[in-house]
Amino acid sequence: MGSIGHVTPQRLNFSEALPLRSGAQLRDYELVYETYGRLNADKSNAVLVCHALNASHHVAGTYEGQDKSEGWWDNLIGPGKPLDTDKFFVIGINNPGSCFGSTGPMHVNPATGSVYGADFPVVTVQDWVDAQARVLDVLGITQLAAVLGGSLGGMQALDWSLRYPDRMRHCIAIATAPSLSAQNIAFNEVARRAIITDPDFHEGHFYAHGVVPKRGLRVARMIGHITYLSDDVMEQKFGRQMRAAELGYSTQDIEFQIESYLRYQGDKFSEYFDANTYLLITRALDYFDPAREHGGDLSRTFASAKAKFLLASFTTDWRFSPARSREIVKALLDNKRDVSYAEIDAPHGHDAFLLEDPRYHGVLRAYFERIAKEFSA
Amino acid sequence: MGSIGHVTPQRLNFSEALPLRSGAQLRDYELVYETYGRLNADKSNAVLVCHALNASHHVAGTYEGQDKSEGWWDNLIGPGKPLDTDKFFVIGINNPGSCFGSTGPMHVNPATGSVYGADFPVVTVQDWVDAQARVLDVLGITQLAAVLGGSLGGMQALDWSLRYPDRMRHCIAIATAPSLSAQNIAFNEVARRAIITDPDFHEGHFYAHGVVPKRGLRVARMIGHITYLSDDVMEQKFGRQMRAAELGYSTQDIEFQIESYLRYQGDKFSEYFDANTYLLITRALDYFDPAREHGGDLSRTFASAKAKFLLASFTTDWRFSPARSREIVKALLDNKRDVSYAEIDAPHGHDAFLLEDPRYHGVLRAYFERIAKEFSA
Repeated sequence: MGSIGHVTPQRLNFSEALPLRSGAQLRDYELVYETYGRLNADKSNAVLVCHALNASHHVAGTYEGQDKSEGWWDNLIGPGKPLDTDKFFVIGINNPGSCFGSTGPMHVNPATGSVYGADFPVVTVQDWVDAQARVLDVLGITQLAAVLGGSLGGMQALDWSLRYPDRMRHCIAIATAPSLSAQNIAFNEVARRAIITDPDFHEGHFYAHGVVPKRGLRVARMIGHITYLSDDVMEQKFGRQMRAAELGYSTQDIEFQIESYLRYQGDKFSEYFDANTYLLITRALDYFDPAREHGGDLSRTFASAKAKFLLASFTTDWRFSPARSREIVKALLDNKRDVSYAEIDAPHGHDAFLLEDPRYHGVLRAYFERIAKEFSA
Repeated sequence: MGSIGHVTPQRLNFSEALPLRSGAQLRDYELVYETYGRLNADKSNAVLVCHALNASHHVAGTYEGQDKSEGWWDNLIGPGKPLDTDKFFVIGINNPGSCFGSTGPMHVNPATGSVYGADFPVVTVQDWVDAQARVLDVLGITQLAAVLGGSLGGMQALDWSLRYPDRMRHCIAIATAPSLSAQNIAFNEVARRAIITDPDFHEGHFYAHGVVPKRGLRVARMIGHITYLSDDVMEQKFGRQMRAAELGYSTQDIEFQIESYLRYQGDKFSEYFDANTYLLITRALDYFDPAREHGGDLSRTFASAKAKFLLASFTTDWRFSPARSREIVKALLDNKRDVSYAEIDAPHGHDAFLLEDPRYHGVLRAYFERIAKEFSA
């Protein structure tokens, strides 16, 4: 098993406006994407990988001259890896609204000539999926072998199965949910309030002021980070480890290693992540609720799906618990869909979907081998 | 079962400095307290109730002319109630460092003549217990029938049992833990960072600037509130209820009822709670770890305890889970102590300890009836 090696992002400009769920349109936008492996002759081996909050089109491989630039799912994707680029043509697309290359709040609004900032239109999972479908149109891919995603990426994979049922054969949705719970929304809302009430946010137009709402971003990231990890793994990694042998009796200095870790994560995040993107992406999470248009009935919602499904969840994931995946599995079974489900006993909480766990990767490897047989046969 | 009726706080001044764990001293301080019921002739029916983060000496009853001023544990304490004031003499003491009457960061530091602010010394659970013991000295109570507390109040009850074993007969510790977990500390730290990085905090001396770090306090309270409630009860109370029939497609406006609820809780809290007190109290929570002085061995820690114990926890409390109470029960059993333990199946999360649940209150009623037999016999 090796790395894909050096990869190069590509860029597509779309002059045709993208109609959004909100009623607004995204005009004259660009999407950045990467591909790995080779598209076969009948274009039947393409896998779209959808990204979550803090990720991008850079899914695997490294950038030339940047040793530590592995893609966010590099442990899964490459020659001989579970999603084997010797067999599959893998596509990663950066969603609009992101801060990693595709048109987003940091770019100029063609309607005004000014940076979008808070005026960037609210985007939804459906809008992202529509934008991804247009990239596939350009690439000439009419049907994907699979759409794969974890967390918010899993929501995109589910949406693909509902709204583009003929354009995919398999849907692989990991550590995801059919909608956020009240508690999920609550954590998102606190993070948003921390950003929005930071005086450096300037109602989302901080770029013009030459500042960044770093205080808010730090707090948002710290909250997020706590919810990505399980209680158990935090206890194992940090427990009550102190920074010094003696207590310092301070409310502001770091006493416990977990404080140091969280502050570091918050600081790092605030250096590169865009505040408006954070608001947009958490809102897209909040809004995702495909059953809403079906009176809340998830079984009726999945009646339109045609793909075969693999779902996976992790026992210690309290952000997107196994129970939420089971809701989807039940809805699919109600519709007599072909569904595989793996509940992986892993200690790492929600973060587990990004980690290399042998049982988890074994499940994915076996499933992709099954898919590969379909088109090589 | 009735209310105690009108109650009146009392105030004690201590001219003898209180030595603190940090090595500092609290000089010339005042403590506010309330008592309910009558102390019997041999002073054997006194119960001390210890308060948690957002509470005070005002445990039960109401203040004259303020109809909605019920004490924070009024459902438990009163004539005929589980902690029956016809039998017991109940004492509530506001801990130093609080913002509800006892000497705290909003008061003048006698050493400087200026308001303490961030210079208020860091106080610990042990310091609070020492301060409470001095109040009992003044009241002439040498041995308490019981010390009762929930959450951080439960930690104080446990500390009483370890450091004043001869001054109490029963320890009742509810929804508590022998120490905070890494996740608990993490949530406290995020809340503290939100407060400390609010530009209106002014390094803890915001009083002099005529401002209050309300943004930070709001975020801190919102985080806290999420952790007090169970995922289940949030789902039942709010779920994905929208404020309007149609989505507003906004990252800043309220879309979901849970957002409205959290913002309201945050706003309310920021109007009355002191930011420095918040830092002090969360730090006292972080520091509490009586096993630390015993090489982390909780069984050895409780070897000094002489009281009889009642512990109670709630199945959906993920902040102080039943597993943490069971650690204490095991340590007590290792020492062959008399211990009762109730794990209450309640949906309300950590907040359950403040609510009126018939099984929970039944357990407390029965235990207090047992205690009452000891001194009336």
